Amino acid sequence: MSFDPPLQKKAEQDETTELRPKFNADGLIAAIAQDADTNEILMLAWMNEDALRATMETGRGTYWSRSRQALWIKGETSGHTQDVVEILIDCDQDSVLLKVRQTGGACHTGRKSCFYRQIDPETQQLWKD
Amino acid sequence: MSFDPPLQKKAEQDETTELRPKFNADGLIAAIAQDADTNEILMLAWMNEDALRATMETGRGTYWSRSRQALWIKGETSGHTQDVVEILIDCDQDSVLLKVRQTGGACHTGRKSCFYRQIDPETQQLWKD
Repeated sequence: MSFDPPLQKKAEQDETTELRPKFNADGLIAAIAQDADTNEILMLAWMNEDALRATMETGRGTYWSRSRQALWIKGETSGHTQDVVEILIDCDQDSVLLKVRQTGGACHTGRKSCFYRQIDPETQQLWKD
Repeated sequence: MSFDPPLQKKAEQDETTELRPKFNADGLIAAIAQDADTNEILMLAWMNEDALRATMETGRGTYWSRSRQALWIKGETSGHTQDVVEILIDCDQDSVLLKVRQTGGACHTGRKSCFYRQIDPETQQLWKD
């Protein structure tokens, strides 16, 4: 089953209470995962229709792996699963925000968050946590 | 001046302390804006090289407007500017996280955050704040 298409009028898309996700030319929507308790940002990944539907149906963070071109149930191999507490969608419905309870690190490097480096704007070097 | 290219080896890109942003086929990188004080997610937008450089140089949230195909200094017309406190970059350097102090609403609808609707997974309807 497909999702309903986005509404043509921007203001209607912004205010509708119908789920009408706007997938990009590659059929993807951006998905931010945020720790439901601390509000820390854990990762940014991508979802296709199947991944969004699976996340809604199973309550487990599920994405589309662009590198593997395959559905990616987060933690399926690593055990670092995401229990989804809430799913929010933005004004034009082209990105979602998952509030999750993360088991283990969200990042494939083993870190809790993928955002472990800060840009020094002066030197363009990165500081690591 | 261009940024240095991403490193070929994934593990090196993950650990380097050099800024080597990975722009997509459209020359863009995803940018999350988060309230520096409350950690609330305000919006997700896009940056090209110029937008990232301008954000680093000016400390004002600057994006690429895909609809207008133009550099977009956040708040330039609305007054709803973003003072950037910190810029973080993720493991493969294809998304950035801005911690900001937001004046007025971050969303063009006037709301503080673009993520004002929650998906009800059962009914597929959206609840509004």
